Order: sequence, then C-alpha cells, then structure tokens
Amino acid sequence: MKGKFITIEGPDGAGKSTQVKKLSEHLKTIGYKVLTTREPGGTLLGERLREVLLSTEGESPVPEAEALIYAASRAQLVKKVIEPALQEGFIVICDRFVDSSLAYQGWARGLGITEIANINSWFLKDTWPDLTIILDIDPQQAFLRMQSKKDRLESESLEFHKKVREGFLKVQDMYPKRVKIVDASAKPEEVFENLLFEIEKSGIIKTN
Amino acid sequence: MKGKFITIEGPDGAGKSTQVKKLSEHLKTIGYKVLTTREPGGTLLGERLREVLLSTEGESPVPEAEALIYAASRAQLVKKVIEPALQEGFIVICDRFVDSSLAYQGWARGLGITEIANINSWFLKDTWPDLTIILDIDPQQAFLRMQSKKDRLESESLEFHKKVREGFLKVQDMYPKRVKIVDASAKPEEVFENLLFEIEKSGIIKTN
Repeated sequence: MKGKFITIEGPDGAGKSTQVKKLSEHLKTIGYKVLTTREPGGTLLGERLREVLLSTEGESPVPEAEALIYAASRAQLVKKVIEPALQEGFIVICDRFVDSSLAYQGWARGLGITEIANINSWFLKDTWPDLTIILDIDPQQAFLRMQSKKDRLESESLEFHKKVREGFLKVQDMYPKRVKIVDASAKPEEVFENLLFEIEKSGIIKTN
Repeated sequence: MKGKFITIEGPDGAGKSTQVKKLSEHLKTIGYKVLTTREPGGTLLGERLREVLLSTEGESPVPEAEALIYAASRAQLVKKVIEPALQEGFIVICDRFVDSSLAYQGWARGLGITEIANINSWFLKDTWPDLTIILDIDPQQAFLRMQSKKDRLESESLEFHKKVREGFLKVQDMYPKRVKIVDASAKPEEVFENLLFEIEKSGIIKTN
C-alpha cells in the first residue's frame, strides 16, 4: 500500500468530525492527496446498514448482530473505498473504524475485545490503521455537547458511555504503538495541535 | 435445550418451503409443538437485512460483507426466536441456516468453509442444528422451477449454482452425522417421504 491510513476515534460529542475536517484541510494544504470517510456508512451499502443500525424504531439488534453489521459495513468500506485509495497513494482519514467496535461491542456490550478483533481481522488482513487517534473526553462533557435529538446509541445511559470510555482506554493498552490518546476536552484548535503532534511523532507522514 | 432444531437447506427451486410446510403440518398432527422460520429474515431486523441483501438495485455487497450480514441476521434469529423456542420445547424448523452460508459464501464465493464456520460458531455456540436436510437438485432443473422474477442471488450464473451444489455436498462431507442429503428431483410427496425417513433414522424425534 502506498498511502497511509489514519482513523479518528472517540465517543459522540468528542469532536471527531471537526478534527477530521481540520486534519484533511491541513494535509491537503501541504500537498497530500486526502480521502475522508466515515463509519458506519461511507458506501451505499454502508449507509443502508447505518440506517438499520441507528434507527430508534423497531427491534434493537442483539449485541452479536450489532457487531456483525458494523463489521459488514466495514468490510464493504475497506474493499470498495479504503484499499483502492491506499493503492493510489491517498492519505485516508476515517471517522470511526475497528476500534469503535472493540470499545462499544467488545468492551461496553461485553462481547470481548479479542473476539471482536478476531472477526475484524478476518477481512481486514493488512488494512489495520497505520495510526489511530482516540479523542478522549469525560462522558458527561460529551453529553453536553450533543444535540437534543439522539439516535439509538447516543440514547444509552451515562453508565454505558463510561464503559465505552473504559473500552477505548483498554484498546489503547492493547495496541500502544498504533493507538494514541488525545485529550478532547480543550478548544478544537488546541485539540488539533495535539493531534498533529501525535501524527508527527508517529513518523507515518510529515505534517508540515 | 428441551426442543429440537431441524434445518432444511438447498438451492432456490429445490422445494424447501413446500417441504418445511409439509414437515410442520405432519409434526403438529402427531402432537409436537412446531415453530417454522426462515433465513435471511425471521425477525424484524432480519427482514430489513434481507431487503438490503436481496435487492437487485444499488451496490452489491463484497463477499465478506455478504457473509457478515447473513451472520448478523442469523445471530438475531438465534437469540430472539430459535433459542427461546427450543427452551420451551418446540421443534424449530428453519428454511435455510448456517449451511447456506458455508455453501454460498464459504465455497461458491471462495471465502472458505472453515472461515465462515468459525465466524458463525462465535455466536451459535451450542445452537447448531440437531439435523440438517439438504434438498439436492441439478441446478438446471432448479432453474426451470423458479419464477421469472429473480432476486440478486437467483440471477447468478449457472456456473455459480453448480459451485453452490458442490458446496452443499462438501458441507455434508464435513458434517456427516448432522447433515443428510435428500434427492429433491422427485415429486414433493416422494421427497417428503425420504425426508421423514432421514429424520426417523437420525433418532432425534419420532415421526409417527
């Protein structure tokens, strides 16, 4: 693969989409070809699965089904979008990826981080991210940042979101070289500086 | 589990739904509590995923995504419908189940029967079928039986359907005790007699 693959993780309300946009613009300015995408979604099939997943109406998926639908959406995104872009030398930035499944389904839903990693490894093969930034924030502060209309996952209890945070920290513990934590409680400009610093430090690309 | 779990497999056009209906009626007549269901579908979530899977419009899922969506639908069906019914002592008859994934995605799509079995084992645990009947038929004969309007999978080439048949035979080879083949080229009454004979022989329930 000629390109590099960066994922931005963290709970809703951590400011992921803002940081993805800032990072994309910055990297384009300094001359990189950049592709941004998101999970779940990013493909036509993924968007249809996203609707099934995030709907607050009808029957909730059991945790195993939830994990498998996210994995399906991810497989489609990897084969149809991410791998072709990496082959062409793009920097691919993805808003949520496999580590969300590890934190949410693996840890917070109790299915096991290793079990979820195994299922994803089956189709990811070598397309694990080169670098993952987790935007870490206190669940209560993240809650305050969110709009009033919440989807099914956002409506989970504070208890659940505390488990998700725990899950992300465990994921960082499992993959210390690939995964870095950035404090997301500060102003967006400050968060972005720290994020760029982590990218520079990782050595996968130059950031200026 | 107090009940028994029987799955009916084979290609479209093999007469699965006819045999499921005959078997259900017969078993009810002789006093069993019977629940019939189908894959993909059988739950509200499953029906929504079935729509995504069988649509001929839009983007086709890559083989890995296809396998994972079938698995998601199956996980939901197992936890919400099949396991509760088995706990209550029902005979559960399912029109397609895990062996369709092994034959279609594992063999015909080339993902590997063992790989697909591993993913399914993760959530099936002990809920593999007690007995599986594969309705075996020449792909050309099955084609002739089908209606003119075909969904995405039914529209695959004859070559693909030959590989599916090969896949089902390989599955029987892998699980000779659980999986039995019944010739589906005969008249429905005759096929049903042979199917009942296989159930009786398996010893999982009495059939008269």
